[in-house]
Amino acid sequence: MSDFELHNYFRSSTSVRVRAALNLKGLSYDYIPLALLKGEHASAAHLALNPSGLVPTLVTPEGPLPQSMAILEWLNEVHPAPPILPADPWGRARVRSLAQIVAADIHPVNNLRILQHLETTYGVDAAGKAAWFRTWANAGMQALETRLAREDETGTFCHGDTVTIADLCLYAQVLNNARFEVDMTNYPTITRIHAACMNVPALADAAPANQPDAV
Amino acid sequence: MSDFELHNYFRSSTSVRVRAALNLKGLSYDYIPLALLKGEHASAAHLALNPSGLVPTLVTPEGPLPQSMAILEWLNEVHPAPPILPADPWGRARVRSLAQIVAADIHPVNNLRILQHLETTYGVDAAGKAAWFRTWANAGMQALETRLAREDETGTFCHGDTVTIADLCLYAQVLNNARFEVDMTNYPTITRIHAACMNVPALADAAPANQPDAV
Repeated sequence: MSDFELHNYFRSSTSVRVRAALNLKGLSYDYIPLALLKGEHASAAHLALNPSGLVPTLVTPEGPLPQSMAILEWLNEVHPAPPILPADPWGRARVRSLAQIVAADIHPVNNLRILQHLETTYGVDAAGKAAWFRTWANAGMQALETRLAREDETGTFCHGDTVTIADLCLYAQVLNNARFEVDMTNYPTITRIHAACMNVPALADAAPANQPDAV
Repeated sequence: MSDFELHNYFRSSTSVRVRAALNLKGLSYDYIPLALLKGEHASAAHLALNPSGLVPTLVTPEGPLPQSMAILEWLNEVHPAPPILPADPWGRARVRSLAQIVAADIHPVNNLRILQHLETTYGVDAAGKAAWFRTWANAGMQALETRLAREDETGTFCHGDTVTIADLCLYAQVLNNARFEVDMTNYPTITRIHAACMNVPALADAAPANQPDAV
């Protein structure tokens, strides 16, 4: 008997974040794959759980919960060990602020539905879609690198030496960047933190290649 | 002597969210306008505060804090009255999940920098940019309407009868929707909650038209 159902997709970076948090906290879940390229996220059954038709949705004993950032906060509140937010308010503010560079400024603009819309509406080809992806990935990575490199709180991970929500967003985005050949040369701090994340089994296990629906 | 400096822009919906929260909590702030259309957000002085070059940034006694969603959470932690999140974890999860429909799925995709990029890179004209805006606004509004209409926790506002982070995101987005002539006919619950928000002086005062840099 699992604690949760996770309706998700192997390659979705927002799904990666949630899988990693569940793993870190030792919570079990049934993996429910939704093949986005086949439109399974737009099925009536999935829209009943999540009217946005996006992934991931965590089905909990209290009901379905869409939106990865809301899921991470809730998991941390009801299953606090190990924490994925700092103990002090300013630390939490910093972690959330770093995380949002990925969660608000990079990921939504580069989501699959946006890339598909660029193709169907403006005839943007694969190279053009990759250029679009890199434009917004680089803008966010540059800002994230600048902050991580200059702020004293940065440690092995984004905030000190334990994994926080900022790391979950960072490492999932870096995995995604590789698909679109984002040049990471200018982001040494991000690259170092990403490597540290991939050395954490809970995070490595959550990567796309290790999921049952990986192709 | 003000409690904070808010580096922001009158029309920015993420700035509206933060101004409304500061007003609700009775916190004073110096309004520092950044004329986005003149590129003031990309100045060296602003990038020193916020390397993303986006608005808003709240300058606090502890340092500068970019990212509106991180700012709202921090303000609520350090100035808890009146609360803008529910007292129970599942309520907070619901509010954050609703807020993210706007904060992750609508706003970032329709941000000024994206619309400008569509024009400069793909030659999308004003009508095309408005169509793009409406595509993502309608997708998010439809999901938000469905959830608000069917979930028992919805009250005068998104969650019961007090203003939460979800309302701050909702009403700021609805104000923005009007600029791009989003047809709100199919969103009666959102429209009702937006009207309730505009009856709260703290929220009405934060609207774009009431700011010193409004044009």
